[in-house]
Amino acid sequence: MLICVGTIAFDTIETPEACAEDVLGGSATHFGFAASLLGPVGLVGVVGDDFPDAHLAAFRARGIDTAGVQRVPGRTFRWAGRYLDDMNVRETTDLQLNVFADFDPQLPDAYRDAGYCFLANGAPAIQQRVLDQLRSPRLVVADTMNHWIETARDEVLALLRRVDGVMVNDEEARMLSGRGNLVAAARGVARLGPRFVVVKKGAHGSMLVAGDDLFLLPAFPVEEVRDPTGAGDCFAGAFMGFLAWAGRTTRRTLCRALFAATVIASFNVEAFGVERLRTLGSAEVFKRGKRFIKMIAM
Amino acid sequence: MLICVGTIAFDTIETPEACAEDVLGGSATHFGFAASLLGPVGLVGVVGDDFPDAHLAAFRARGIDTAGVQRVPGRTFRWAGRYLDDMNVRETTDLQLNVFADFDPQLPDAYRDAGYCFLANGAPAIQQRVLDQLRSPRLVVADTMNHWIETARDEVLALLRRVDGVMVNDEEARMLSGRGNLVAAARGVARLGPRFVVVKKGAHGSMLVAGDDLFLLPAFPVEEVRDPTGAGDCFAGAFMGFLAWAGRTTRRTLCRALFAATVIASFNVEAFGVERLRTLGSAEVFKRGKRFIKMIAM
Repeated sequence: MLICVGTIAFDTIETPEACAEDVLGGSATHFGFAASLLGPVGLVGVVGDDFPDAHLAAFRARGIDTAGVQRVPGRTFRWAGRYLDDMNVRETTDLQLNVFADFDPQLPDAYRDAGYCFLANGAPAIQQRVLDQLRSPRLVVADTMNHWIETARDEVLALLRRVDGVMVNDEEARMLSGRGNLVAAARGVARLGPRFVVVKKGAHGSMLVAGDDLFLLPAFPVEEVRDPTGAGDCFAGAFMGFLAWAGRTTRRTLCRALFAATVIASFNVEAFGVERLRTLGSAEVFKRGKRFIKMIAM
Repeated sequence: MLICVGTIAFDTIETPEACAEDVLGGSATHFGFAASLLGPVGLVGVVGDDFPDAHLAAFRARGIDTAGVQRVPGRTFRWAGRYLDDMNVRETTDLQLNVFADFDPQLPDAYRDAGYCFLANGAPAIQQRVLDQLRSPRLVVADTMNHWIETARDEVLALLRRVDGVMVNDEEARMLSGRGNLVAAARGVARLGPRFVVVKKGAHGSMLVAGDDLFLLPAFPVEEVRDPTGAGDCFAGAFMGFLAWAGRTTRRTLCRALFAATVIASFNVEAFGVERLRTLGSAEVFKRGKRFIKMIAM
């Protein structure tokens, strides 16, 4: 089984073109909707008593297990952000941790046997406490962010020594490795422990470093980007979903997982929140995958 | 025959690591050294009486024809620039047009029969005067820059209607098309006339748009970038050199030309000026090409 520990949130998003208020978001949410296209996935997270049952039903309607989602008194995590002109730059305008502030993830017993686990961005100490609960994981991949690298560097480094893979953006790779050149940075992160490193470059694609091996993939060229929020978590969800489905982590499988992640994340940015993923069918994914293959094949 | 009309210059380059003064540079120079790896190439440019014969001999030593290089009284074009931390951002610190200010390119008679012509960045009116001198070109590709798009937009647009292809960076594509999204921008530029558009994204790779077709290629991941100056012109030189060698511009050939351009330009950034290209051999190029294929193959 594949599980993801992360946030379930209400996002308020402003782009140069439009605005959306309190849409269903969060790292676990985006991860779950993407991963569910490839197989079973369970979420570990927390919501407040303001979280509608309809949202939980929407998860289940896509085959996403919510046994690990706790509901506690209080308000659900809220994030608000604004995208600037080119959609590659955003600023956070509001952040309310609410019930997430005291979140101490407890895996349901069935989840403790999960073979595949994604630790979405969060306090590295909490991420490690999740690891402690796993009985015999086959593959653990973690995300992190600039905030934790700055304020809890030692704990992030301790985490990196315990995971199989890490998924970071270019800034995080540079901060973790202290190298400005992105390839050197990715190789530097790999030397901190994980067997492979995925660098997400947004509209510029992604890079996989595994030992001496390097794999480069452009992003699928989306012409109308409506909302980039959660694209990285969708990317992670499809990547992990693919690996769990394949049951292998050979170089070839990792590359294909990156391809699937790229294609599925490209849908997410076409609408606000998870609106596009909620109804996305595998036929559409395969069709876009075929188009993408042609765009990158020599 | 392939010809390139552009600058031959002395560059003074400052990077976070090092500094180089008055190194041989300019668009035609970088173009020529790259193109010469693939076949014969002739340069059209102007130098002052301070330009050493040894540099002209260095061109010829690589099989670059210099019949179109005029020497006139005065000083050679000089450019000075500084690269900031991440090497993707640079600022021009000095620009002296010198003899280039009055440059009105006259093609030697043999060059007027050239089948392949690259118009490096320059005043669009001058670029068009070069076109007027060509008797029956098979393929003309032009470069331009933000300065001309801002100050001589109509002339740039007139030029685009007369060329087969255009090679621009992401900023230029956005300025020409008025579209922020890069794919939409590239398609917008294609609608201005040229049969194909190549968008150079530096360390992020390149994109080819030809009709409804789109081809994406990452950059070769260079770990030690010493000097990015001229990488775009090398890219153009190898691209045009490949097309002239192949004698075709099918989709497949254009993609392969982009691949060759990516590999050859990756060498250029490993040393100042054209130092690396001056001694680059085809065995090294093939070897890196094979490595690159593995990095982008699924």
